[in-house]
Amino acid sequence: MLKTPDHQVAGHEAGLGKLGPLIDDSGRFYKPLQGDNRGSEEVAFYESFSSNTNIPEHIRKFFPIYHGTKIMKASTGSDHPHIVLQDLTSARANPSVMDIKIGSRTWAPGASEAYIAKCLKKDRESTSIPLGFRLSGMQVFINDESGFYKPHRNYIRKTDPNDVRLLLRKFVSSNPSAEMETGSSLGPDCSLASFVYGGPNGILAQLLELKAWFEDQTVYHFYACSFLFIFEKRLALKDARSNAEVKLIDFAHVIDGNGVIDHNFLGGLCSLIKFISDILSETKECNGTNGQVEL
Amino acid sequence: MLKTPDHQVAGHEAGLGKLGPLIDDSGRFYKPLQGDNRGSEEVAFYESFSSNTNIPEHIRKFFPIYHGTKIMKASTGSDHPHIVLQDLTSARANPSVMDIKIGSRTWAPGASEAYIAKCLKKDRESTSIPLGFRLSGMQVFINDESGFYKPHRNYIRKTDPNDVRLLLRKFVSSNPSAEMETGSSLGPDCSLASFVYGGPNGILAQLLELKAWFEDQTVYHFYACSFLFIFEKRLALKDARSNAEVKLIDFAHVIDGNGVIDHNFLGGLCSLIKFISDILSETKECNGTNGQVEL
Repeated sequence: MLKTPDHQVAGHEAGLGKLGPLIDDSGRFYKPLQGDNRGSEEVAFYESFSSNTNIPEHIRKFFPIYHGTKIMKASTGSDHPHIVLQDLTSARANPSVMDIKIGSRTWAPGASEAYIAKCLKKDRESTSIPLGFRLSGMQVFINDESGFYKPHRNYIRKTDPNDVRLLLRKFVSSNPSAEMETGSSLGPDCSLASFVYGGPNGILAQLLELKAWFEDQTVYHFYACSFLFIFEKRLALKDARSNAEVKLIDFAHVIDGNGVIDHNFLGGLCSLIKFISDILSETKECNGTNGQVEL
Repeated sequence: MLKTPDHQVAGHEAGLGKLGPLIDDSGRFYKPLQGDNRGSEEVAFYESFSSNTNIPEHIRKFFPIYHGTKIMKASTGSDHPHIVLQDLTSARANPSVMDIKIGSRTWAPGASEAYIAKCLKKDRESTSIPLGFRLSGMQVFINDESGFYKPHRNYIRKTDPNDVRLLLRKFVSSNPSAEMETGSSLGPDCSLASFVYGGPNGILAQLLELKAWFEDQTVYHFYACSFLFIFEKRLALKDARSNAEVKLIDFAHVIDGNGVIDHNFLGGLCSLIKFISDILSETKECNGTNGQVEL
């Protein structure tokens, strides 16, 4: 039984006559190949990556498992080729999810002039140029009654650096809907920061593991690729060990590194690491907690 | 007594009716303020930097000493304001010098559309986009008889990633003029690599020190800023301790970091570090030498 994903926060959405990803109940995610050559480029990446013996095992966990391609009935009703991937949120009941596109430049050097102009415009209008990354979508589970805090795409699209800093705090807060009022100190409480961002298995530790790889790897350059941060609030509170996951997704614009590191991705990653470290430092100062943060 | 610098490898050169830097015999370098507001921007940076108490002492050594500004007779013959700086090569007899412009993007977000278009074109035509840095000039001392290997500006301007890799090797070779012949293994011998790039005081160690600062500092964003690598061959061979220096120059496009790291500079720096590490690894493999490289 195929259906549209429950926890998609960014990207094309399947709908009546609209092509978008589907999931099944066995934990698989079906991503329709995009019409231009992006779809085939993404398949080419997954094929290359899954057979590349130079990828360390501890790095593979950051990528969705690839199950090949399949022609199947798409969300539009007609047959269409799909990339079959691991459904990253299938094991989660109420996942909090954040999608962050990495790199101050989202276009590869060999792209067409029209595509470069389009990307450059988006990079300049978003936080990609100033921050080295931009937010593409997010949802934060509050509780069964309130459900999710999920800012609208139109808001996400217009976020400036201060908004991004605030939303990275809201992602690990029990009160993500709380608005800062003038003269009030009521803001996101960051009560989950040390569980989600901190700790030996937290998001910061995982980003640092990836950073070490990106300082050395010259196999791939990842343009317009995103991080997904995923965690389950219930588990975060119950279990000291973090259940937070970091995954990389969207590989339609990956090119050969040709012996050069992916300085564009690495720069954005280091910037994101600094944002998250700052939140952990502030949180530690406020709470007087915890020895879990490892830098 | 003012004269034109002996060891300038990039930038405007003083000449008949042409504004360019001058040096005196007391070790000072006089850089004329550029006509648009670049000159005043650079003065503003030096003023800010020299009085900023958040700059760690071990980082200051990477910047030229600033002695204020002075209105004086310029290379054109008329009075003109100059920035007075430390002459970085004054203590050297036959310095080998390399000028490397850092960052895949040389324009700041707030620049004019015309300026952005001009920079973007240069970034794309050079190695700035693919490598995160580009070569602006170099000279390598060979010996008293042959003097310097100094590739022409027109050649430097057209270097591709492979040329840059080769020139980074030539910079630390005793035979920088040797050309690779088809089927021949005659290439730059990298005989000085471990003395200049390697070792506890070598260029790689200094770049790693700067990298650690750039991972954390959010005070300045350095656009179109360059590294100068300087060493004296005679000293490199005589003394195991490296005499290689790394300096940062050209601050006409430095902007406030606003709490964000300089991911554009950091990405380019990490890419350059990888290039230099690669040369050291290859050299070690070939020579079976040395324990000097510290990563």
